[in-house]
Amino acid sequence: MAPMKNALAYAGEHRETALDMLLSFLRIPSISTLPENKNDIQHAAEWLAEQLTQLDFQDVQILPTSGHPVVFGQRTATDPEAPTLLVYGHYDVQPPDPLDEWESDPFEPTERGDNLYARGASDMKAQLVAHMNAIKAILASGDLPVNIKYMLEGEEEVGSPNLRAFMTEHKDLLACDLCLNVDLGISGPDEPSITYALRGLIYFEINLRSAVSDLHSGLFGGAVDNPAIVLSRLIAGMKDADGTITLPGFYDDVRPLDAAEREKKSPRDDTWWLERTGTRILFGEPGYTAEERATARPTLDVNGFLSGFTGEGAKTVLPATAMAKISMRLVADQDPEAIHESMQRYLEENAPESVEWTLKSLSSCRPSFVERDSTGVQAGVQALEEIWDAPVEFVRMGGSIPVVGLIQEILGVDSVLLGFALPDDNIHAPNEKQHLPTFYRGIDAYIRFTYHLADMYKV
Amino acid sequence: MAPMKNALAYAGEHRETALDMLLSFLRIPSISTLPENKNDIQHAAEWLAEQLTQLDFQDVQILPTSGHPVVFGQRTATDPEAPTLLVYGHYDVQPPDPLDEWESDPFEPTERGDNLYARGASDMKAQLVAHMNAIKAILASGDLPVNIKYMLEGEEEVGSPNLRAFMTEHKDLLACDLCLNVDLGISGPDEPSITYALRGLIYFEINLRSAVSDLHSGLFGGAVDNPAIVLSRLIAGMKDADGTITLPGFYDDVRPLDAAEREKKSPRDDTWWLERTGTRILFGEPGYTAEERATARPTLDVNGFLSGFTGEGAKTVLPATAMAKISMRLVADQDPEAIHESMQRYLEENAPESVEWTLKSLSSCRPSFVERDSTGVQAGVQALEEIWDAPVEFVRMGGSIPVVGLIQEILGVDSVLLGFALPDDNIHAPNEKQHLPTFYRGIDAYIRFTYHLADMYKV
Repeated sequence: MAPMKNALAYAGEHRETALDMLLSFLRIPSISTLPENKNDIQHAAEWLAEQLTQLDFQDVQILPTSGHPVVFGQRTATDPEAPTLLVYGHYDVQPPDPLDEWESDPFEPTERGDNLYARGASDMKAQLVAHMNAIKAILASGDLPVNIKYMLEGEEEVGSPNLRAFMTEHKDLLACDLCLNVDLGISGPDEPSITYALRGLIYFEINLRSAVSDLHSGLFGGAVDNPAIVLSRLIAGMKDADGTITLPGFYDDVRPLDAAEREKKSPRDDTWWLERTGTRILFGEPGYTAEERATARPTLDVNGFLSGFTGEGAKTVLPATAMAKISMRLVADQDPEAIHESMQRYLEENAPESVEWTLKSLSSCRPSFVERDSTGVQAGVQALEEIWDAPVEFVRMGGSIPVVGLIQEILGVDSVLLGFALPDDNIHAPNEKQHLPTFYRGIDAYIRFTYHLADMYKV
Repeated sequence: MAPMKNALAYAGEHRETALDMLLSFLRIPSISTLPENKNDIQHAAEWLAEQLTQLDFQDVQILPTSGHPVVFGQRTATDPEAPTLLVYGHYDVQPPDPLDEWESDPFEPTERGDNLYARGASDMKAQLVAHMNAIKAILASGDLPVNIKYMLEGEEEVGSPNLRAFMTEHKDLLACDLCLNVDLGISGPDEPSITYALRGLIYFEINLRSAVSDLHSGLFGGAVDNPAIVLSRLIAGMKDADGTITLPGFYDDVRPLDAAEREKKSPRDDTWWLERTGTRILFGEPGYTAEERATARPTLDVNGFLSGFTGEGAKTVLPATAMAKISMRLVADQDPEAIHESMQRYLEENAPESVEWTLKSLSSCRPSFVERDSTGVQAGVQALEEIWDAPVEFVRMGGSIPVVGLIQEILGVDSVLLGFALPDDNIHAPNEKQHLPTFYRGIDAYIRFTYHLADMYKV
């Protein structure tokens, strides 16, 4: 493996260049949600296109969407049989507020100890710069062993509203064998890990109306139905007191945890969950640990409920409306569409005639699951274990990364989730940082991953 | 009945004086809720004391409370055996907002057609002035046939926060055989009516907490309980889907409607209730009409519910808290204290360990019920039927008048509810008005009521 050794040596010698590139990227305040940063977004896209051009990528383009543009570029491997890897990342960042809680300027990256502090450092400019430097090192050391395409969006922090349309439009350009999503992290600086399952999401808003307007509870109480009580009863009917979700067919497509998953000793035991939440007792579906319930099992939660008078004191109003936001975290192989239909049917069958109701899906994202023994994941495992000299933890994440399901749906490929953020990186919060030793290991890991992936595809 | 005839003749001749007195009272903006009207409140109290002094009342006093003062005065009947009537009223008014919806200055009473427009006209300065002019006419025509005490408060529109303490302190001064509450109305200008039953109220706020703070539903959903779901389940357990309240013992003390009440043909049929509320179908406890359910049966309503994120869009929060305001309208002979205990027990038995909860009673008021064949009511019936030459409708009101229960509790007497507001008087709204022909009939009615009451007590 001379080329890989050479690439690793090159990367080791060029850490300062990699850091400089990261600093330069972090100085661009590419906040996607603020109109006043529109030029910065454009600047960040141009900056990325320039990096890809310097890496001799072809078809480097800043492709427009209805929102912020997507940066694309590709470079072909020497071997015509080589697989094609689509690297997904985003160049936008969260706003830095509250500004006065930052110890240094969020857009003037500052090193303190082993960490580099800046908005977007960990989420996810460092991951992107690490990958580009890995490619640079590989190119400096010989042939590119896999075809690489970059798809770098500018709207991840605002929910990627235009990505589906973009990917549908550019489906051929984006065609690939596997996606590498670098918008991830590992469990700790000395705990290499790979996420192989993400929960999906479907998020509803239910609105109920009884009367035309709020009424006086003394004058009308008893004559008309109360939408807050109706909604309470409907919600109570969605989940048993023991935590089992009772929507018809809800668990039908749930992939059970396998033996290895059930036997796994998670570092997050009940004490961890109790301390992190401050709850008196943990609660949920019987037969599973809190860790399992929060990562590998589907849930149903009320995210918001509003009806009537909610200020100080006693207002004797009989509310005309009630609203609840209700979402489910889904796991493989649940289908958000099927859950939507089940919810619709449940309401049709259970909402009384005394109220008018609407059900709206505000957000939806498929669960994702990539086999731990798949080529992509195994290439990642090998890379991490060589660097850390420790076994890789397989992680199920309770949250959702919509783009993973979207890529599965539109491009028909799995995503390997491999990135080098740390749990204490303060993402979306003041004093976001990237752990620099982990950043450098990340470059090495992407180098190794690329070579191992090419080798494994050959077998 | 020469004295009564004379008094009625006197009143008929002095309508202009009565109207002038009402105009003068209405020009005082005695808004109890606004600090800037404190002097006006004092002015109104002094104005009332002056009227009582002119009527040769004794012990005329402006008695302080922790808030606005109570005006007291009494005059003794010639007959030492005469019963004592405590007349309850209030001299404060609601703020006039929104001002720009008034067609004339709310504190410059203006006649248009048969109506006099001003804030406080119907609620309740006209009723008080009518009663005082009745007493004036009686005094001008002979002996006072009953002992009269006035208790006129200045905080009714802010919930009478100091009346309990005041009445407890002045219990002896206020001692009486019966209360006449003039803060009422009749069903229409040609529909004489007497209210004989009012619903009580107990108003709770329930607060639930699971975790220390709101959590991310992706990271923590499944590990901890959801207080909005717990609260929904608790609420669903308080009332059946058919509208029957299921709190243990809730109906134990409810006085059933008697045969006359069940047979009564209310002018408010289902169509009336449907039109007034705009609901698709009326709803409530089986076996009762909407009218019965809204006036003669107890209810349980959620007045407000708040948990989590209730703005636009989808925020994946797992809320740490949920709050509901829940109130019951009570009927005779339900006891708010017993209902409070039942609710407390219900929560103790049903709230799961996963949440901390608090139950707070924000407001409480006893139901009231005065027998239709009691002396006081019958004196009122006779007075009204003589004037209107029509049968009196007996009315159950769905709302609550806390002072009625308070007087029953502290002074141990019933209240006759007799006043001359009309349903379309816009009380608490712009363009409040008093129907002047009804005001003058009110004076006559109070004259007749006073004599008939004295006569009936003699029997």
